[in-house]
Amino acid sequence: MALVVQKYGGSSVADAACIKRVAQRIVATKKAGNDVVVAVSAMGDTTDELLDLAQQVSPMPPGRELDMLLTAGERISMALLAMAIGNLGVEARSFTGSQAGVITDSTHGKARIIDVTPGRIREAIDKGQIAIVAGFQGVSRDTKDITTLGRGGSDTTAVALAAALNADVCEIYTDVDGVFTADPRIVPTARRIPRISYEEMLEMAACGAKILHLRCVEYARRFNLPIHVRSSFSNKEGTWVVADPVSEEGQMEQPIISGVAHDRSEAKITVVGVPDKVGEAASIFKALADAEINIDMIVQNVSAAATGRTDISFTLPATDGPTAINALKKIQDDVGFESLLYDDRIGKVSLIGAGMRSHPGVTAKFFGALADAGVNIEMISTSEIRISVIVSQDDVDAAVTAAHSAFNLDADQVEAVVYGGTGR
Amino acid sequence: MALVVQKYGGSSVADAACIKRVAQRIVATKKAGNDVVVAVSAMGDTTDELLDLAQQVSPMPPGRELDMLLTAGERISMALLAMAIGNLGVEARSFTGSQAGVITDSTHGKARIIDVTPGRIREAIDKGQIAIVAGFQGVSRDTKDITTLGRGGSDTTAVALAAALNADVCEIYTDVDGVFTADPRIVPTARRIPRISYEEMLEMAACGAKILHLRCVEYARRFNLPIHVRSSFSNKEGTWVVADPVSEEGQMEQPIISGVAHDRSEAKITVVGVPDKVGEAASIFKALADAEINIDMIVQNVSAAATGRTDISFTLPATDGPTAINALKKIQDDVGFESLLYDDRIGKVSLIGAGMRSHPGVTAKFFGALADAGVNIEMISTSEIRISVIVSQDDVDAAVTAAHSAFNLDADQVEAVVYGGTGR
Repeated sequence: MALVVQKYGGSSVADAACIKRVAQRIVATKKAGNDVVVAVSAMGDTTDELLDLAQQVSPMPPGRELDMLLTAGERISMALLAMAIGNLGVEARSFTGSQAGVITDSTHGKARIIDVTPGRIREAIDKGQIAIVAGFQGVSRDTKDITTLGRGGSDTTAVALAAALNADVCEIYTDVDGVFTADPRIVPTARRIPRISYEEMLEMAACGAKILHLRCVEYARRFNLPIHVRSSFSNKEGTWVVADPVSEEGQMEQPIISGVAHDRSEAKITVVGVPDKVGEAASIFKALADAEINIDMIVQNVSAAATGRTDISFTLPATDGPTAINALKKIQDDVGFESLLYDDRIGKVSLIGAGMRSHPGVTAKFFGALADAGVNIEMISTSEIRISVIVSQDDVDAAVTAAHSAFNLDADQVEAVVYGGTGR
Repeated sequence: MALVVQKYGGSSVADAACIKRVAQRIVATKKAGNDVVVAVSAMGDTTDELLDLAQQVSPMPPGRELDMLLTAGERISMALLAMAIGNLGVEARSFTGSQAGVITDSTHGKARIIDVTPGRIREAIDKGQIAIVAGFQGVSRDTKDITTLGRGGSDTTAVALAAALNADVCEIYTDVDGVFTADPRIVPTARRIPRISYEEMLEMAACGAKILHLRCVEYARRFNLPIHVRSSFSNKEGTWVVADPVSEEGQMEQPIISGVAHDRSEAKITVVGVPDKVGEAASIFKALADAEINIDMIVQNVSAAATGRTDISFTLPATDGPTAINALKKIQDDVGFESLLYDDRIGKVSLIGAGMRSHPGVTAKFFGALADAGVNIEMISTSEIRISVIVSQDDVDAAVTAAHSAFNLDADQVEAVVYGGTGR
């Protein structure tokens, strides 16, 4: 008998009909002989509706109260899901994050899980019950206040519970059949990836593949917990995220490239004419860090000898653009740079594959494919298992298609089916 | 400095605008130099909407899950109210029933409070914060599950908190200016009752005055806690419910009658031709008790010597009518009664007043007034401070008006203003 933790997002429980369908799937998993624990998000647009109400009463609601408000969403969906399962003749119990023992720090709105003490969940399992746990929420160890985990929170809840319960697998249900070699909306012949390593999945997530959140993959890697990403609309096998996909599969050789990811949500800022002195770059990035802005790629031009000045470009989430520009303007006189350029018409295209460690020709082939497709590269960044380039936003589709094809990732026929909307 | 506990019902926090208005009232109470604790119900129709969702996924939702679901309603209203207060520059913290220490038994849907341990509320008060507590909910001592208190639950939460915190007063906000000598919709010249005893208020509540729930008055009496019933739409003094209204007011004499209450929600069942033997009545009322039906008034006719049979009539909530009829039909053969009569076109009119203890003529005057108004009395029941009669539902208005006038309760001018809808 296996212990399976399942996670259903907001689009999977958007209304009563959806909830009843999910209940049937959960009951089927139970009847197949498994113990089942479920993490569930708030129904469809509930979170947005609650945020809207909050805005109506306060332009800057305190984090503690906002968390109290938003956690009502999962309370509703989990109770309804437990009722729907009960109606199918199987006993189910819903638990808040606090009841499930999801202990966090006190950072409201993006709390980090510091411990999971799932005594009541274990008790429910031992009684043969299905435990339904509110995703996205926990309780602060220090203040005993209710907290939320921020983006990707429900996935993280599921993985953290699975790790604490020593589950056999954490199934993340979504509206596609798994992780694909590229976004099927851009490359219709993209292939489902049957198995992928944590490291590659982390790079995919960091490079714009929205199917799993970075935090949940990190958590799974730390506890060596297998994740099965699959569709809540079909019974097909999805994508397994595991430590060592090659040896587990018994394959002879690893594919060089696992997939091509892209991201249109970044912007590029260029600080023009920075005096080429020790500490100038440090001042710039300290100002950005103080404004809590996450920088992605950084390029510093070789200093022009004639002027003694250089340009520094970096990318960041476009939503942080205005904040970053403000922070930099405040230090313009101190640092003495000349001007700021802002460009949010960029895109990032990334090639990810553990196999590229042992294949030195990958970069050349990637850049060659982009050149053949007429795509100009603006910035480059690499890791051991990833190459990312910044291109014009208009060139993203062409770049993804060219790279996908150059590394022979195309399937013979269309494999991907996108079933519903996008979950959270 | 006084400690004031305030309770706002669903109609007082129906939308963002209402919540902001209530926030201003709370802040004004705080700025007047008081410590303030607030118990709040779910917004307007939230509870009904959640019940409707539950019905969609399960025809018979388990009580535990239904309570988990419904308590999301207060979570939303209390977080929004705390935000709205914060936006006025005063710090507020919201607390669930569990966080506020409202400990109950495990009877889901109508749990009873068995202890209140308001450590976190006291802490918030000591920090100068306003504590907002979810009404209607608690946590089971034995199972640690979330419970709801059932009808009148938010009033009970407020009074229980006020008692545990040794508050100076519990203010129950509603949509009328207090308790009136009769329903102003029937008697436009009804007078606001400035002060009333717990005993009289209990009789009023039991006899159909919907302004305060029986349980909350009982709780306040046990702890000798003053309740101030007032309107959330005005700043007028309302009605004080206290132990000894006369001596506290310094009056010379108590009014004979405090008010006239009425109730159209009951039905009458007559069990016809019951054999006049020992134990027959007991069998009938045991069957009703087993079906969990609350009986109000009972009348047994004098047995007719010729037949050796008698009729037993009783009243009960009309909503329990079908259940009661079924329960009685099952024992018809065993008991050997002849038939059942059912009448839900009845009304109960009650005269309440502590002063009637020392005024023996009250009954005669009451019945005389009804006779003059052409109202036929079907059943009679009395307590030390109350006389109730069952009349035809069509005669209720005439009976209330006649009694109100006979005891000189009419004001010189219209005092009552009904501001909004009805709260819960």
